[in-house]
Amino acid sequence: MQKNNRTKLSDKTAKSPKGTVRGNTAGKRRSAAADKGRYSKITPRPRKEPVKISFLGGLNEVGKNMTCYEYGDSMIIVDCGLAFPESDQPGVDFVIPDFSYIERKIDKIKGVFITHGHEDHIGGLCYLLHDFDIPIYATKLTVGLIRAKMAEHKFTFEPRLNVVAAGETVTAGDFSVEFIHVNHSIPDAVAFAIRTEAGTVVQTGDFKIDSTPIDGGVIDFGRFAEIGQEGVLCLLSDSTNAEQPGFTQSERKVGETFKSLFTKAGGRRIIVATFASNIHRVQQIIDIADEEGRKVALSGRSLESVVNIAAELGYIHIPEGTLIPIDAIKKYPDNELVLVTTGSQGEAMSALSRMASGIHRQVAIGSNDYIIISARPIPGNEKAVTNVINSLLRLGAKVIYEQMYDVHVSGHACQEEQKLLLSVVKPQFFIPVHGEQKHLRHHAKLAESVGIPPENILIADNGYEVSVSEDGILHSGTVASGKVYVDGYGVGDVGTRVMKERQRLGQDGIIILTAAIDSYTGRLVSGPFIDSKGFVYVKEAEFLMREAVELAERVVAGFSSKGGVDAGAVSLKLRDELSRLMYERTKRSPMIVPVILVV
Amino acid sequence: MQKNNRTKLSDKTAKSPKGTVRGNTAGKRRSAAADKGRYSKITPRPRKEPVKISFLGGLNEVGKNMTCYEYGDSMIIVDCGLAFPESDQPGVDFVIPDFSYIERKIDKIKGVFITHGHEDHIGGLCYLLHDFDIPIYATKLTVGLIRAKMAEHKFTFEPRLNVVAAGETVTAGDFSVEFIHVNHSIPDAVAFAIRTEAGTVVQTGDFKIDSTPIDGGVIDFGRFAEIGQEGVLCLLSDSTNAEQPGFTQSERKVGETFKSLFTKAGGRRIIVATFASNIHRVQQIIDIADEEGRKVALSGRSLESVVNIAAELGYIHIPEGTLIPIDAIKKYPDNELVLVTTGSQGEAMSALSRMASGIHRQVAIGSNDYIIISARPIPGNEKAVTNVINSLLRLGAKVIYEQMYDVHVSGHACQEEQKLLLSVVKPQFFIPVHGEQKHLRHHAKLAESVGIPPENILIADNGYEVSVSEDGILHSGTVASGKVYVDGYGVGDVGTRVMKERQRLGQDGIIILTAAIDSYTGRLVSGPFIDSKGFVYVKEAEFLMREAVELAERVVAGFSSKGGVDAGAVSLKLRDELSRLMYERTKRSPMIVPVILVV
Repeated sequence: MQKNNRTKLSDKTAKSPKGTVRGNTAGKRRSAAADKGRYSKITPRPRKEPVKISFLGGLNEVGKNMTCYEYGDSMIIVDCGLAFPESDQPGVDFVIPDFSYIERKIDKIKGVFITHGHEDHIGGLCYLLHDFDIPIYATKLTVGLIRAKMAEHKFTFEPRLNVVAAGETVTAGDFSVEFIHVNHSIPDAVAFAIRTEAGTVVQTGDFKIDSTPIDGGVIDFGRFAEIGQEGVLCLLSDSTNAEQPGFTQSERKVGETFKSLFTKAGGRRIIVATFASNIHRVQQIIDIADEEGRKVALSGRSLESVVNIAAELGYIHIPEGTLIPIDAIKKYPDNELVLVTTGSQGEAMSALSRMASGIHRQVAIGSNDYIIISARPIPGNEKAVTNVINSLLRLGAKVIYEQMYDVHVSGHACQEEQKLLLSVVKPQFFIPVHGEQKHLRHHAKLAESVGIPPENILIADNGYEVSVSEDGILHSGTVASGKVYVDGYGVGDVGTRVMKERQRLGQDGIIILTAAIDSYTGRLVSGPFIDSKGFVYVKEAEFLMREAVELAERVVAGFSSKGGVDAGAVSLKLRDELSRLMYERTKRSPMIVPVILVV
Repeated sequence: MQKNNRTKLSDKTAKSPKGTVRGNTAGKRRSAAADKGRYSKITPRPRKEPVKISFLGGLNEVGKNMTCYEYGDSMIIVDCGLAFPESDQPGVDFVIPDFSYIERKIDKIKGVFITHGHEDHIGGLCYLLHDFDIPIYATKLTVGLIRAKMAEHKFTFEPRLNVVAAGETVTAGDFSVEFIHVNHSIPDAVAFAIRTEAGTVVQTGDFKIDSTPIDGGVIDFGRFAEIGQEGVLCLLSDSTNAEQPGFTQSERKVGETFKSLFTKAGGRRIIVATFASNIHRVQQIIDIADEEGRKVALSGRSLESVVNIAAELGYIHIPEGTLIPIDAIKKYPDNELVLVTTGSQGEAMSALSRMASGIHRQVAIGSNDYIIISARPIPGNEKAVTNVINSLLRLGAKVIYEQMYDVHVSGHACQEEQKLLLSVVKPQFFIPVHGEQKHLRHHAKLAESVGIPPENILIADNGYEVSVSEDGILHSGTVASGKVYVDGYGVGDVGTRVMKERQRLGQDGIIILTAAIDSYTGRLVSGPFIDSKGFVYVKEAEFLMREAVELAERVVAGFSSKGGVDAGAVSLKLRDELSRLMYERTKRSPMIVPVILVV
């Protein structure tokens, strides 16, 4: 492994004109209209200026990881993920970072470097590429998964996707970025050693230490140690499991559990739910099924898609004749089948949820099913997963989940691994990333315990610009950061106000009061009519609705007697009076929408 | 302890006329209008008819526990709880059982027997007592807590509350009910031995085995053993922790942890969040605070209320001068203070949540606060609790929670305790209760493991009527059961339809289209006007809204050219066309409400 060996860009994936020093090609806006607002100026810079690290996502949250590095005239981005909505973000499909800082710096941007192919690291990329023409650098499988997302988004242009292998280095403006192999719950994950004149910053991406991985080799600890020997200015490291003592178990452990469970299953049909992207787990299921003489069928669109890509790119090896289409399962007896399915997080309308609620087209669950949920609920999904388990049990199936056997291992380093990495990389400064506040704090404590002085540890937040040089680490500024909601085709058109309306509508419903009044006399011509949605079933609240109509009549009459017609004033008064009435009678606060037509 | 010693009813709480055999006083409807529908007839019954056990709540859910026992001409009820709403029940305050079966059987009902004072066992009682005059039997603290709830509900009548001590027996028609002391996370909890001519049924209520309880003595295992020796027909036992191996730790363990944590806290202010009703935990906090020379202040309405009741009734002992009002904390330095607060489940607007979001009136959190969250998140609350922890950490506080130390123990028996109880009670039949399907199934397996034949174990569901006699156990019928939503003052006025509307409004919002059309020509007189809530911010979607208005104009014109005016048909067509347009443009499905006024 060499330092700074220039990347061998794969010709079939690199789309920029031949001969260009691709690593130095700056980003471009896709829309000319976005051209206003270029601020960057080239100024002579002092030596050893600090590296600026800005966080657009991934801190104080689990999701939408996106970090910007700025040095000299160059900027690079690491990851561009999405986050799944919280319970107070109803109707939102997912959340992506705010790209306005990218727009401001577009001329400096030399590339986006992706650590691995999980949604929280690549899910925002299609939205970024839609607006900005920036070259992407990632490993082969990650590029394959990005390509699949682009196909879903029906891209009409060809983004500049560059395949880089672990061990290679890409030069990007004033940066060089070395790809270092790590273990994670998806193959082909990497960490980055990001070099500038001011020093080397290591960002781990998501990682764990797996000494007996299924494929792809052990995390390249030797390389981390070499880079540590050279001297590392700053480490940014995955904090997800900073609360968990010890070591994360090897993925191989799950295979051992599967083996014994497949035996226990006896003559029953086996169904395993897992993450679509956990290709090594799917590999283990396929291998054991093959040994046991069972066929494997996949259920779930994302699972089929990922397995196809992985098979095409050589990341999964399927013995001839093992895989059958889900439609073909009726041709086989239960004891010759393993179904692999999505829905291990209890996601509504996922394959497993459809099985649990009896609406899956090909699979009817019964007492001869042996179901293994090979995942841990992501925080917030506990209830949904439990509901699926309970429904499957009620259909008579045997259900195995994490509390019962080792049917899942984490993809993230626990405390001992985090400490080991810190000890090997020996950074001067440390920024815990990828986690909620509690994870970041725990990780900071761990760093202290291996000898990093507290003043050399900085707990940052989204929107922080952090400057780091040999002289120190500093929260030096603020960049635009925030949540952009994606809802259907809409990106960013659902803001705080609409969200608040949704929350209120969802809690207490809406009352619509309509009336037509005469433009001259202000008297009622038609109505008032009252309708409600999500408030009470109107037929059961006839008395209250009559009371509301009478109140509305009095309000309108009050205005008309004054001889003027100010529909706005009438509406305001109606809203106040009806709100009061409804709260008095029901102790609820439905949204009140009066519509007064003047005719 | 004697068998069948008649209860010594406390004169100051028993409200029925003196001399009445209270245990035999049947229930009455409070409203004469409810008198239609008495079905029960007295018929000569065969000897050893089965005991009928009907479940109105508490199975396949955690919450709204309510079980009916019927034998001969008598019926008794055990517990009457509430459940907290699920995420798909927006706007609902809580859920209570459907009482229509009670209404049908009212003439037979001899009383409601309450195991302990938690909301999931008493929370439905005020709604039951509002409609039905049924005597209540419970221990002293439980009656005190019920009384407090009645005061909140502003009862204008005096329900018949009877205080019964553990060890006493109440005769209630054809039943006699013995109260047996158990350990739980609230004092004065009991199990019941329910005797009929057909045999004895034991229902545990919530229980654990605490060999070193803070107060009130160890669970009366001797009595369970005696009753087991006499012969038990059927056991109904708490399944909450049926997935947890081993024994639940003693409440005293938490006190030991508190002691060492209070020392670690040093000069900092200590804040402990716990369940209001966990009186023994509050006792331990007060005792240790007193030893350490700290004052204790309470924050949270329910906590103040419970501590007051417990102190009045002698269930908590507060050393003179230890308790100070929350308003007085500013007079003391941090190292002389312990605050006890509600909000350990991350409940919105609870005292701890208000502290976390910086809006608590008396408490501003800072780096000198040492906060202990002495609870485990109830399933579904994990995210809310984590959010509070993260916010407190960001304010600089030190936060201790369950993963870190033994700051909480469960109130429910684990597997070894459940097996021990089964072995001692030696029931002929077994029904696991108080749990989700997975808990019930695990508990059934445990019962098998101690030698109860599988055919003698019945996993029931809400709405099951189960008949049990020496000859067998049988799912013999169905009773009306269901969820009644309480929302503000409304009880049952929010049904499935309104709930579905709320879900949809919360997801995608609403579009209101209003127009006035001429009654003769069908032409537009005013409008169409369009408004939306929770959909998009209208100003940002001007183009789409204009498109919608134009579409509406075309639809109305299409009808008017036909010369007829059918406002209903116009509305239907508008709804369809607008839905289609909105989905095509946004991939969302807002509710469309067209209002056509004919003038």
